Amino acid sequence: MDAIDVIRAKRDGAALSPAQIDWVVDAYTRGAVAEEQMAALAMAILLNGMSRAEVSRWTEAMIASGERMDWSALDRPTTDKHSTGGVGDKITLPLAPLVAACGAAVPQLSGRGLGHTGGTLDKLESIPGWRASLSGAEMLDVLAATGAVVCAAGGGLAPADRKLYALRDVTGTVESIPLIASSIMSKKIAEGTGALVLDVKVGSGAFMKAEAPARELAETMVAIGADHGLRTVALLTAMDRPLGAAVGNAVEVAEAVEVLSGGGPADVVELTVALAREMLAAAGLPDAKDPATALADGSAMDVWRRMIVAQGGNPDAPLPVAREEHVLRAPASGVLTRLDAYGVGLAAWRLGAGRARKEDPVSFGAGVICHAKPGDTVREGAPLLTLHADDTSRFPRALDALSDAMEITDSGAPDLLPLIIDRIA
Amino acid sequence: MDAIDVIRAKRDGAALSPAQIDWVVDAYTRGAVAEEQMAALAMAILLNGMSRAEVSRWTEAMIASGERMDWSALDRPTTDKHSTGGVGDKITLPLAPLVAACGAAVPQLSGRGLGHTGGTLDKLESIPGWRASLSGAEMLDVLAATGAVVCAAGGGLAPADRKLYALRDVTGTVESIPLIASSIMSKKIAEGTGALVLDVKVGSGAFMKAEAPARELAETMVAIGADHGLRTVALLTAMDRPLGAAVGNAVEVAEAVEVLSGGGPADVVELTVALAREMLAAAGLPDAKDPATALADGSAMDVWRRMIVAQGGNPDAPLPVAREEHVLRAPASGVLTRLDAYGVGLAAWRLGAGRARKEDPVSFGAGVICHAKPGDTVREGAPLLTLHADDTSRFPRALDALSDAMEITDSGAPDLLPLIIDRIA
Repeated sequence: MDAIDVIRAKRDGAALSPAQIDWVVDAYTRGAVAEEQMAALAMAILLNGMSRAEVSRWTEAMIASGERMDWSALDRPTTDKHSTGGVGDKITLPLAPLVAACGAAVPQLSGRGLGHTGGTLDKLESIPGWRASLSGAEMLDVLAATGAVVCAAGGGLAPADRKLYALRDVTGTVESIPLIASSIMSKKIAEGTGALVLDVKVGSGAFMKAEAPARELAETMVAIGADHGLRTVALLTAMDRPLGAAVGNAVEVAEAVEVLSGGGPADVVELTVALAREMLAAAGLPDAKDPATALADGSAMDVWRRMIVAQGGNPDAPLPVAREEHVLRAPASGVLTRLDAYGVGLAAWRLGAGRARKEDPVSFGAGVICHAKPGDTVREGAPLLTLHADDTSRFPRALDALSDAMEITDSGAPDLLPLIIDRIA
Repeated sequence: MDAIDVIRAKRDGAALSPAQIDWVVDAYTRGAVAEEQMAALAMAILLNGMSRAEVSRWTEAMIASGERMDWSALDRPTTDKHSTGGVGDKITLPLAPLVAACGAAVPQLSGRGLGHTGGTLDKLESIPGWRASLSGAEMLDVLAATGAVVCAAGGGLAPADRKLYALRDVTGTVESIPLIASSIMSKKIAEGTGALVLDVKVGSGAFMKAEAPARELAETMVAIGADHGLRTVALLTAMDRPLGAAVGNAVEVAEAVEVLSGGGPADVVELTVALAREMLAAAGLPDAKDPATALADGSAMDVWRRMIVAQGGNPDAPLPVAREEHVLRAPASGVLTRLDAYGVGLAAWRLGAGRARKEDPVSFGAGVICHAKPGDTVREGAPLLTLHADDTSRFPRALDALSDAMEITDSGAPDLLPLIIDRIA
């Protein structure tokens, strides 16, 4: 087998054989296929595509490059959720304990943020004492004890994907649906979950701005799940405006706690409950306790507190607060017809909530609070957004990001995506 | 300027701006753009193409990466030929001294062979004492003294091309017309010739098997020449069967000497004279001595001898002869309707005339002599080919390469390409 033959086959529009895929993924992971060869192959895949059979096999080969976790020792079925990332997307925080409270186990390996969308681990790390890194044995202990664990993926899962992702990041080959789908699914399948619900975001704040490619990504991932015997469902959901009111790290934890207390923004509650129901159904627990009840009766909050404590966190400790704030007020009275997710995400990022490079720290207190959402009537001079940062020098560039992000009109309704656009199974 | 933006632009089908091209070629040469980034860009160029403006600018940027030679000290115009490579293509050997004998100067930088097509320098190095490496000053001296020089390109010409070519070779990105055309033309323009004739081969033994891509390559190179003020003409010529009778190194030198003596195979003579006339016309010497006359009157041979001596060679020394030979005889009487260029080239390569890796040596004596050419009538048992090698263990695999390369039928004419298919200017 030769790397050049594999590259040429894909370059010339052929389907790669299972043997070619197995060989090239393994040889790349071992370093026998060079970075520049995989870069050329990734570009050929991006431009010429992969069939369902190819993308399933590619996923399988990436899973085979590392270890696969096993939760068969648990006394309840496992189910997980993956979001393609959005602005204000703190859903994992209330969702994992909520689903555990309803009877499934949630073994979530999560990531850190890069760019304008935040990372779940960054958010949780704003809780004093909480730690993201657990061994496999610790992860099982937390799961068995609390029903939910959210932690960092160890280096042993799908190392081929980790290497390939770093390469795609510098070679303009991120935006390939087969490569995105196989990257996500290889990690989730190696994670060993028994069921999976995908939250595929659509809109300016999402990786996929338009519905058609988001749908294609969702369909590809659902097909990969089916091909690997993993019950997989996808929801296409709105990311044209931020989710909830808080965008940042500690501010999003606070909002998640509000939801777990039975309150919180309506959109966050609605999406959390919808995803929880999907996760329970996919786990084969259609008769589980209803998630709306588990939010209302405090049982989800109980799991949350145990889960945080189990990972060293103090759920009662005050969350970090940024030193400086800046209030952005409505320049006129009217209807807020637009609050652009990307603009708000970029502002939060520039305030310090996100990182530009993998090695950068994040500010736990930084972020944006939205006092109004699209469709709300606002009065001239009323607060629209509050910006939080550790340093006032952060405000001007954050305000720049917001300059085109909002629109107030005399009357009229905003043109918004439905919160849940479609369900793909 | 950022490599990922340039890659994305080409990936998404945009034309690269002159500033993007200048930057990416320079940054790659300096090592500021990584090999994997250029590999992804090369694949995007291969699949999405480049416009005439882009390919001309890309060529310019590769020329600008190194030095440019200058022959203005000579008292006659310079003109050169480049062949895309074929089996038995020893044309440069008689052509360079022939054109010099007719009044132009030929400053040819040439290469070594890799794969089934031989390299001009390998052939000339079979002449005892001849050396391929000359400094720029030595090259000028030989040119001034004899009118022709054939030597190895120094490291200073188009270093971007050398680096990019090595990358394309391992990343399945060789077969891109804009990248092939800019590679050839950057070296020829940097070489400083005042006129250029391209011999673009078509057929099984050529890089381009079919006429349409060969024509596109020829047109692209002629356009690049025009855009750089270099008078450029291309001939599309046949490479479905070997050129002449000899395929190898020393055996091709011997055939070239036959041509310079006024003899030699008709096809080699015809193509040599046609290319010489084009080179003289492109050099602005339409009234120069006719090349056919310069072959007949011995003046081309005089230049050849001076040229070989000027580079340390002894034109009277016996040429290397391989230790072993094997004669392949006609299995039946009839008309030889096929003698496939690729099969014969592969056989010569396996006999030791070519190299598999850049560092391999070649056997000067190895090769194939064709005793019959397509269209000839042959008798059962008469010699068709003689194989030459230093070791009998080379014969079985060479014979394998020839097993489907020949066809003898009771009657009928071979279906051959015309020797000169077309002229593109």
